[in-house]
Amino acid sequence: MTGSELVTARRKVYKEGPGGIRVPFQEVVVRDGAARVQLYDTSGPQTATDGPSVPGEGTGAPGAPVGRAAAGLPGLRTPWVVARADTEEVEGRRPSPRDDGRRAATAPGPSMARGRPRRALTGRAVTQAHYAKKGMVTTEMEFAALREGVPVEVVREELASGRAILPSNVNHPESEPMVIGTRFLVKVNANIGNSSVTSSVEEEVDKMRWATRWGADTVMDLSTGSAIHTTREHILRNCPVPVGTVPIYQALEKVNGKAEDLCWEVFRDTVVEQCEQGVDYMTVHAGVLLRYVPMTVERVTGIVSRGGSIMAGWCLAHHRENFLYEHFDELCEIFAAYDVAFSLGDGLRPGSVADANDQAQLAELRTLGELTHRAWAYDVQVMVEGPGHVPMHKIKENVDLQREWCSEAPFYTLGPLTTDIAPGYDHITSAIGAAMIAMYGTAMLCYVTPKEHLGLPDREDVKAGMVAYKVAAHAADVAKGHPGAQSWDDELSAARFEFRWEDQFNLSLDPGTARSYHDETLPAAPAKKAHFCSMCGPKFCSMSISHDLRRMAGAATAVAKDEAQAPDGAPAEEIRRGLRSKSEEFVASGASLYVVAPGNASDGPPGAGGAP
Amino acid sequence: MTGSELVTARRKVYKEGPGGIRVPFQEVVVRDGAARVQLYDTSGPQTATDGPSVPGEGTGAPGAPVGRAAAGLPGLRTPWVVARADTEEVEGRRPSPRDDGRRAATAPGPSMARGRPRRALTGRAVTQAHYAKKGMVTTEMEFAALREGVPVEVVREELASGRAILPSNVNHPESEPMVIGTRFLVKVNANIGNSSVTSSVEEEVDKMRWATRWGADTVMDLSTGSAIHTTREHILRNCPVPVGTVPIYQALEKVNGKAEDLCWEVFRDTVVEQCEQGVDYMTVHAGVLLRYVPMTVERVTGIVSRGGSIMAGWCLAHHRENFLYEHFDELCEIFAAYDVAFSLGDGLRPGSVADANDQAQLAELRTLGELTHRAWAYDVQVMVEGPGHVPMHKIKENVDLQREWCSEAPFYTLGPLTTDIAPGYDHITSAIGAAMIAMYGTAMLCYVTPKEHLGLPDREDVKAGMVAYKVAAHAADVAKGHPGAQSWDDELSAARFEFRWEDQFNLSLDPGTARSYHDETLPAAPAKKAHFCSMCGPKFCSMSISHDLRRMAGAATAVAKDEAQAPDGAPAEEIRRGLRSKSEEFVASGASLYVVAPGNASDGPPGAGGAP
Repeated sequence: MTGSELVTARRKVYKEGPGGIRVPFQEVVVRDGAARVQLYDTSGPQTATDGPSVPGEGTGAPGAPVGRAAAGLPGLRTPWVVARADTEEVEGRRPSPRDDGRRAATAPGPSMARGRPRRALTGRAVTQAHYAKKGMVTTEMEFAALREGVPVEVVREELASGRAILPSNVNHPESEPMVIGTRFLVKVNANIGNSSVTSSVEEEVDKMRWATRWGADTVMDLSTGSAIHTTREHILRNCPVPVGTVPIYQALEKVNGKAEDLCWEVFRDTVVEQCEQGVDYMTVHAGVLLRYVPMTVERVTGIVSRGGSIMAGWCLAHHRENFLYEHFDELCEIFAAYDVAFSLGDGLRPGSVADANDQAQLAELRTLGELTHRAWAYDVQVMVEGPGHVPMHKIKENVDLQREWCSEAPFYTLGPLTTDIAPGYDHITSAIGAAMIAMYGTAMLCYVTPKEHLGLPDREDVKAGMVAYKVAAHAADVAKGHPGAQSWDDELSAARFEFRWEDQFNLSLDPGTARSYHDETLPAAPAKKAHFCSMCGPKFCSMSISHDLRRMAGAATAVAKDEAQAPDGAPAEEIRRGLRSKSEEFVASGASLYVVAPGNASDGPPGAGGAP
Repeated sequence: MTGSELVTARRKVYKEGPGGIRVPFQEVVVRDGAARVQLYDTSGPQTATDGPSVPGEGTGAPGAPVGRAAAGLPGLRTPWVVARADTEEVEGRRPSPRDDGRRAATAPGPSMARGRPRRALTGRAVTQAHYAKKGMVTTEMEFAALREGVPVEVVREELASGRAILPSNVNHPESEPMVIGTRFLVKVNANIGNSSVTSSVEEEVDKMRWATRWGADTVMDLSTGSAIHTTREHILRNCPVPVGTVPIYQALEKVNGKAEDLCWEVFRDTVVEQCEQGVDYMTVHAGVLLRYVPMTVERVTGIVSRGGSIMAGWCLAHHRENFLYEHFDELCEIFAAYDVAFSLGDGLRPGSVADANDQAQLAELRTLGELTHRAWAYDVQVMVEGPGHVPMHKIKENVDLQREWCSEAPFYTLGPLTTDIAPGYDHITSAIGAAMIAMYGTAMLCYVTPKEHLGLPDREDVKAGMVAYKVAAHAADVAKGHPGAQSWDDELSAARFEFRWEDQFNLSLDPGTARSYHDETLPAAPAKKAHFCSMCGPKFCSMSISHDLRRMAGAATAVAKDEAQAPDGAPAEEIRRGLRSKSEEFVASGASLYVVAPGNASDGPPGAGGAP
């Protein structure tokens, strides 16, 4: 069986919308072509070829992607931005060799030509929140609404109220519009970022593509090493989803890593640099106030946010208030001119379950609420970051307080990890917390990989983190009753019950893994249509038995429905008659409970491992 | 570095208790020998040697285990059982070649000599519930109490009320007593069981050892293939934890797999056979009543329990009530004579989120409540099985109804899976649901492996399932505030904050994996003591910065405590003074925020992948 045979049942399609927009989906053809299931698609143009589009199949080939990395993606949103006539191309900030970090002079990164940056005409706010508040429906909103399967007015209203954001820097036109808010599908962010070698630019672009292939709704470039500007440039020009950063990391590089040498001017310069490149949202740790720092002293794990500890160190070294807090209004003015969203950093988040929901964390959260309103006054979009490490019984309080104090601005949490005892498995300790916090209303989840606390995630770790978090996000969508979410589950379960193995694989979050696990025990092609799997074998398959039962009990169904209100009552005479006639029919027909597929009559491996 | 060097910090120890009992724990030596952490240990005598005892290290060597498999474990509980003088050795049931399945005559399994079985003196109940109700404290209760770290009276009370069980067939003296109930640590069961080849007896014993090495509190032998009796015999004689089974599987083998040929007599014979072997609890699908079967007809996935579908088929074929329900009192009499506990099977559990909490499932649950009381009348111990596939928002209702209808008998659930879309990752889809349902009060979780729905779990799948479920169970213990549970988290987090890498590894749920992930990026031995990890590199380590902050802010701590009630108030003058003097001190001392370990001055790989 060739690769293409394996994946032809799943490929990219587009839904057409107002203004000629084409919104991508992954389409799965099921029931021998009689039905089609469309799944949300974050992978961008990389999967738009004629080739296979199933995650894990034929992706990341080093040939084509490298060529595309140099070229960049088309500027999907450019005409929409231009048409609004509220921005202009500007000369922009003058580049500096230091933009690529301290070692840039001796080891420059690969260059990438780019045009002039765009920014708002003087005095104009060009944010999606601004448009929404004025009652204007943008093409970005239309695109996001079609993706979510909701009326565009819902998107506009949520943006206008601040309950959702649509990250869309005018300088990142490659991004396919998406919306983050509690009324929409739960989103997942993947963190990437370079290590210290210059060759890693392509590696990071590849990691970004890999993450979006597995469903990353946004990526954060957390690079701290060399070629920091160039790496980001390549990521942005190739990234079909919004990109977030933590600008304090680069600012610190510009002052040779000495936190006390940081100042507003260096930070401002870095922010403008990144606004002009096209970063869609930035983590700003403006809530780490001087007076909160001593609250962390008795913690089990102190301050675990890098940005938070940098700012805490600056505050203490200068004995002055956090300059990000003091200059917050100036930041708002800048962000409004490019449509950069705040991701208000939780620099004092707990780093252990012992520190969860403590005084330091909650004091900062109150300040983030204040900052939310300050940003909204400039029509700047805002989301609020949350923990971290939180035991299950303290998760809901986080969402409740955030919603109250931050007036329902979207919540964006890291996990949370529900226990500290399992380094190496923190994608699981945190998927538990992530699913729960999303069910309670968190809008976006930052993934955690198995390497958390231990090392840099590689490609396999990125995939493991993404899959665990897509599971968590989808479980929350189902629990929240998001329209259409459970239909995916139902379609897959129906395929399982009807022994349509190929449909089950193709509908899986990770088709390749599902198929390979099945093939380990029953690799022969006929098994894909057999009415049993290796778990129970042909004799024990409960689903086969259930099908027989369904045939038998068919006649009694209508009567059973009448009995629905009295499950403990005596069976009606009609049911008795129906069952009696069916039981006679069943016995007369040979009374075999087992459906054995042709060619597999006797040697399917019965066995255990499933549930009793 | 040799294997033994790696693991000397973790080994088996015993706590002495009343009557000379010795209760095993895994002890982790931390803080350079200054402190010891004792963890619950299910691995039994296999880890009692002088060798390494860390999970994943040096285990499963084929040599020693095979020798021991033939010999079996010592009968730890035999003297306690004998001393109660309420049982006697009996001739027992006459073995039949059919006990090993249809093919036994042509392919007999390896034999294992055994003594005569023990059962209650006529008219006596020998269950732990019976003793507890009479106010008697058994050695088994003392053992379990010491394991849990609770007063023995709590164990006795919970057993007497039926809120907990202590599975302890008098014919399985190899089992180390443990208790299952909502007031105790959440337990995890691992399913094992043979496939159709006779050589698998040793494999299944090995799988059982592997599962208990990873923390399995009980194992269920779900064998359905050949050598079914012999496989179980070898498992029981080598198993240090309670063993559960589903006797209908073997009964079906005895009637050549034809469900309609099943009858009470064959089932009864099988139950007695397994009682005499030493099975500690049995899943019995006595709640699948004739009138409930039609309720499943309109389901997305019908009946997915094997036992449930067998009994439903029998009911329909005979148009008679479930013979397990009709003969339930006779079963109780048998179970009381050996101290076998019921695991009341949920034969109608949902197999998809669409079917969760439906009429069929809840009708059966009401009947399980009735059966619970019928069993309690015989002093037989009872737990009740639960789903399955349940979306997050419907999980709590399952626990609430089970507690109400089954009068707080321990709940024992399979997951539940919170979404159906991720075959290949159902250890994660279900760990989410398992953690939640355990937090709400479920006493034991049946693990789910990545192969669920797809094939037979191998050794790696067993480990993956166990680790995911130990995470879920422990997260629930922490959320429930179980005494001592969070101290494990706190000890590990303190090690993390203090850069005691070896302590962090040794305290991990899976030390080998944590260590190997760390070594992938920073393999050199000095890195184990470095004040940073590869995730952030030496420059960016927030924990290092946090330590500096702690020193700086130390003077202000006492004052900060006074401020604890007014986090938003202005800082007190004392704090200002303290911080000012500390900031001067900090700058005067060089003001470096970074702690760089000797020999790692410049080349730790800074980079990203963690959280901002």
